[in-house]
Amino acid sequence: MAEGEKVIRRALGAGYPMRSMLLSERWLETMAEVIEGTDVPVYVGSPEIVERVTGYQVHRGALASMGRKVLPAAGDLVADARRVAVLEGVNDHTNVGAIFRGAAALGMDAVLLSPDCADPLYRRSVKVSMGAVFSVPYARLDPWPDGLDVLRGAGLTLLALTPGEGSVALNELPAADTDRCALMLGAEGPGLTAKALAAADRSVRIPMSHGVDSLNVGAAAAVAFYAVAFG
Amino acid sequence: MAEGEKVIRRALGAGYPMRSMLLSERWLETMAEVIEGTDVPVYVGSPEIVERVTGYQVHRGALASMGRKVLPAAGDLVADARRVAVLEGVNDHTNVGAIFRGAAALGMDAVLLSPDCADPLYRRSVKVSMGAVFSVPYARLDPWPDGLDVLRGAGLTLLALTPGEGSVALNELPAADTDRCALMLGAEGPGLTAKALAAADRSVRIPMSHGVDSLNVGAAAAVAFYAVAFG
Repeated sequence: MAEGEKVIRRALGAGYPMRSMLLSERWLETMAEVIEGTDVPVYVGSPEIVERVTGYQVHRGALASMGRKVLPAAGDLVADARRVAVLEGVNDHTNVGAIFRGAAALGMDAVLLSPDCADPLYRRSVKVSMGAVFSVPYARLDPWPDGLDVLRGAGLTLLALTPGEGSVALNELPAADTDRCALMLGAEGPGLTAKALAAADRSVRIPMSHGVDSLNVGAAAAVAFYAVAFG
Repeated sequence: MAEGEKVIRRALGAGYPMRSMLLSERWLETMAEVIEGTDVPVYVGSPEIVERVTGYQVHRGALASMGRKVLPAAGDLVADARRVAVLEGVNDHTNVGAIFRGAAALGMDAVLLSPDCADPLYRRSVKVSMGAVFSVPYARLDPWPDGLDVLRGAGLTLLALTPGEGSVALNELPAADTDRCALMLGAEGPGLTAKALAAADRSVRIPMSHGVDSLNVGAAAAVAFYAVAFG
């Protein structure tokens, strides 16, 4: 479910097939080009009717129902990737969206998800990501954590982001570790599981001060992506 | 207004005077030590009564009304600072809180606010910051932008964060520019004003890819803080 002009255009640009579109009247002109380029039904109504049909206020005036694409195999995604984000147990749609937005902006080549992560194509994830879920290729890693072998097989170093003792500060990582790497992130609160940490080559942390023990997961992910790509 | 055990303790630790506290019954034990250390009135009620009194659901079971402290002069704050965040026109309380959380975690020594920034001590800012508004000293810069002279007078380089053309990628900044610097951030959407950009020594940007043009302001601030402190 893509919401808003920019996100709908991004989904179409990424090859997702549109099923139908629902617009508030005053968005007809903005979306004219999209409407001309498609054969699918386009429904138009007042903002009140659109809200009654959907059950929520459609802030951006345009909603498109899109079909899914078949997900690529994780192995195909990572074969030539330089930097990959790996999410374990991130079951909050907002956080999944925020992480994808950061991953897209900061040059991650792919995102891999443990089986219990929330769906990146759920409406809330799509919206928070500003459509980045359509820009960065992703796949599921199953079984978990054994599926991580595909990353090591592709020659990537597995870095587990955790505030725990014994982790290396991101700014002190040797360049060899970030040249080609997979950055593993857990859910806000519990973080990575013991089995995921055990599967990693190295534990890394964001250097923190002022007695602060964490950032929200979207900000932490963005900092870590920047650090491995540019730091 | 401080909400939750951790945030209340952080406010007290930073020397903010408590006026009174409102607790759900089952938080009495957790807060026992705080209650013993104070003479102010402590009101206790069922969660329903607490909600009726405040007008909202108090998720963390404890609310404290704190007095303000006199804000320091900007000049005093920056005299020996290595890294300072400067916010212009950030009038969203959530964003102010998120930026303070990142500033505290990533080692900024102080935050300076243009006159039209939202209040860091508003309940929502305090909560989103996880109490970081009490950990990082801050002051108002007035007049704006002429007040920025105090930063240059203290020997700090003024870096304006903006995606605009002609800016230098943060990862390509010479070390001399980040050794002691003030990082200027504008509001989500409009960004820094022309007069703020003109007052800066240099415009800088977060290097972005995948056609993404922005991060949310909390994530962007955290990345920029990391980049100038550790990048």
